[in-house]
Amino acid sequence: MSETNPTETGVNKSAATKAERHKARQQKVKQGVDAKIAQAQEEKGILLVLTGNGKGKSTSGFGTVARAVGHGKKAAVVQFIKGNWECGERTLLEGAGVEFHVMGTGFTWETQDRDKDTAAAEKAWSATEKLLQDESIDLVMLDELTYMVSYHYLEVDRVINALQNRPKMQHVIVTGRACHRAIIDIADTVSEVVPVKHAFEAGIKAQPGFDY
Amino acid sequence: MSETNPTETGVNKSAATKAERHKARQQKVKQGVDAKIAQAQEEKGILLVLTGNGKGKSTSGFGTVARAVGHGKKAAVVQFIKGNWECGERTLLEGAGVEFHVMGTGFTWETQDRDKDTAAAEKAWSATEKLLQDESIDLVMLDELTYMVSYHYLEVDRVINALQNRPKMQHVIVTGRACHRAIIDIADTVSEVVPVKHAFEAGIKAQPGFDY
Repeated sequence: MSETNPTETGVNKSAATKAERHKARQQKVKQGVDAKIAQAQEEKGILLVLTGNGKGKSTSGFGTVARAVGHGKKAAVVQFIKGNWECGERTLLEGAGVEFHVMGTGFTWETQDRDKDTAAAEKAWSATEKLLQDESIDLVMLDELTYMVSYHYLEVDRVINALQNRPKMQHVIVTGRACHRAIIDIADTVSEVVPVKHAFEAGIKAQPGFDY
Repeated sequence: MSETNPTETGVNKSAATKAERHKARQQKVKQGVDAKIAQAQEEKGILLVLTGNGKGKSTSGFGTVARAVGHGKKAAVVQFIKGNWECGERTLLEGAGVEFHVMGTGFTWETQDRDKDTAAAEKAWSATEKLLQDESIDLVMLDELTYMVSYHYLEVDRVINALQNRPKMQHVIVTGRACHRAIIDIADTVSEVVPVKHAFEAGIKAQPGFDY
């Protein structure tokens, strides 16, 4: 542009063409989106799985809980793994009426006690089963549930059974790495969060209010 | 297990060995994690990019905002693309003191007007630049910023410049598909959310309080 010295009309014409092309492209995108929206008419509770090794799975679940609460929906969270720190989301969401159940032990590599962990998982799962039978709850978040299955603290069949027999309109979010194939199979939406890079690996300290 | 009839002692012994093996494994994991934590001592604001085509990028960002607010941090959100619906997260987070700036137009394929969109992006970017110069703000979320760059509404150099010159301890989250390589290069943590499957594609309607 800087090499030429176009007349004002020339510039306007070129800009107008660009704008028209953009409009045509966007119209096509909109048509595609509209057609898909028209097709998507089934209403049911969604089973959303957020898995993979990247950062952002639990926070995404908590974001959806915040969204639900913002819409006046009733939500509950079961945290199957909890560190030693206080979780910032909990403060805000519990204040907004979200029911929290936190498993009694910390990270499993902190406790290193299989029996204790299994008993704690069992207790948290009992609370979960009650939530998955309660029609008044619109959204249940099962944070880090995947590890309970991969560590064999919970049998996958029990998990599948409770998820499949929940109220029809109830949404469920399952987070955690390496989600069991059987849970992915019955899920409606599955996102895999892939780490491209992570500050921690570059020697940057995890920080309260951001990382936890 | 059902085919054999082990003595009680036998069962206990086997369970004990299993528990010991588990403990040894977990101790090794813990050692690895502890060593990494010891190494990660640099403290600075993180630039987190959540990109990819999967569901959960914006909600993850909003979850992090909820976390920050729960820790008493000050956060601000700029939404570069906004649909026609009310966003549930906004209700909750704005109520908790989070500053929101929402770009004046809807999805770009709804407006189909390049000039109007560019002007709106410019305005939203002005608000962003102020936030990225304000040390009192701990976390800035730039929701769907990536599209402003890929649609050439904003020059990538301006974005990079503002991100690099922000206060040292300020965290920034950038969300949206197809993040520009130059932003990924300067980011500390990057997660790509990959769609494994999506309810919408299976004909299930997007639902308020869950999908938006």
